[in-house]
Amino acid sequence: MQHGPDRGPGNRSIAMIPPDHPRYRSLVTRERLADCARSGIVAMEGLTSHGRGEAFDYLLGERTLGSARIAEQTAAAMLLSARHPVISVNGNTAALAAPEIAALQEACGAIVEVNLFHRTEKRVAQIEALLTEAGADVFSGEAERLLPLTHDRAWCRREGMYAADVILVPLEDGDRCEALIGMGKKVIAVDLNPLSRTAQKATLTVVDEVTRALPEITRACRELTEDDRRRLISSLDNHYLLSEAIREITLRLAHALD
Amino acid sequence: MQHGPDRGPGNRSIAMIPPDHPRYRSLVTRERLADCARSGIVAMEGLTSHGRGEAFDYLLGERTLGSARIAEQTAAAMLLSARHPVISVNGNTAALAAPEIAALQEACGAIVEVNLFHRTEKRVAQIEALLTEAGADVFSGEAERLLPLTHDRAWCRREGMYAADVILVPLEDGDRCEALIGMGKKVIAVDLNPLSRTAQKATLTVVDEVTRALPEITRACRELTEDDRRRLISSLDNHYLLSEAIREITLRLAHALD
Repeated sequence: MQHGPDRGPGNRSIAMIPPDHPRYRSLVTRERLADCARSGIVAMEGLTSHGRGEAFDYLLGERTLGSARIAEQTAAAMLLSARHPVISVNGNTAALAAPEIAALQEACGAIVEVNLFHRTEKRVAQIEALLTEAGADVFSGEAERLLPLTHDRAWCRREGMYAADVILVPLEDGDRCEALIGMGKKVIAVDLNPLSRTAQKATLTVVDEVTRALPEITRACRELTEDDRRRLISSLDNHYLLSEAIREITLRLAHALD
Repeated sequence: MQHGPDRGPGNRSIAMIPPDHPRYRSLVTRERLADCARSGIVAMEGLTSHGRGEAFDYLLGERTLGSARIAEQTAAAMLLSARHPVISVNGNTAALAAPEIAALQEACGAIVEVNLFHRTEKRVAQIEALLTEAGADVFSGEAERLLPLTHDRAWCRREGMYAADVILVPLEDGDRCEALIGMGKKVIAVDLNPLSRTAQKATLTVVDEVTRALPEITRACRELTEDDRRRLISSLDNHYLLSEAIREITLRLAHALD
């Protein structure tokens, strides 16, 4: 799903970008995030994080690698086989992919819960509203400081991600990924940087752009057989998946100046 | 020069970042830019561009490569040998490196002129004030649409960058770099992405972070002999400099999962 000029709050300033600009699509997405930052859904720091992702996506050729597709199928298998699956959503994920989150929830039955680095009650409410509007059933209510972290990402809900056995964390920070792993959870990360701490620490890392990754996971949730699931979970090798992503980037770099 | 918690408008929200966070320095700089975005100096889209740069700097090991040092010395030689050198400053450059711009101007005698992608009179005035406060002598006054571009970066001053023979453009976009080259100017880019159109089109590309690059160029301006300058300019090979940066990134990636 693309975020074109016809979609949502991005309309106002997109007119400023000339359509003949070679990075038009990337700039339009950037504008959408900037508008979401103006309305408070995206933290300003989230804009910079998005830029980091953009750079890695550029190095991946802005496409889903074969290894990422395996990771996406494995993510579906893990979510479907979980006792208490949770999708953790932050501002960037909501701004970029609220409808994709809703579709995935429908396909795998996971709890959708908002968790923010730059947390205010107002932002939580705004993001919950955006997700609800997109069709997600958001698990909200009183949060507690339950995760072993020094900042506001510690806040979550006892019956939500605190109780999760499998948790999908698109666009996560490394600290929190580590904390969740330390609590014995299986963590599925969506992260374009195969070198990040999140990517390295997660149980499974999907090295793909979030609006490409989530629909692939959703599709796999609908298509995988019981046998497929077992096979994918038993053959999970995150080190291999990450090294494949790195190999692709290296290949692309080697030919960059041809 | 670092942008620590003691510097400028970053103070308010930096307290939110735990000093034990492994990416503390990067997050502090990100917060400084976020604060400059709140005050209007940095465009929201500039935050995302900064993130792209961060990702490439991370891949370079957040250090000045040997090839970048040669590029920085060559940049100094070009600025010193120019008839009408100009430093073009945008919001990100001003937010990150206003004092470094002032020091470079003092060392090479270039005109400092503000040029913005997301241009408003208010932003131009804010950035000019920030530069002036940092000690730069800013060339301002009436601008005209003089560059062959479809967006607001076309605006510049007839006696400023329009008349430049050598122009330093830190953190530039590819369109504008190409337009300046098309006008027969020698363009020195500072760009952390060796694959970007800016990096590829520029006469000389400094693949280094702007607050590391500018002081190196300034130092070289003070130290180079007449002979050094001639030698550096005559041996300029931008394809070699870019391929060295790419080689370093590739090396780092190859060992990433060791």
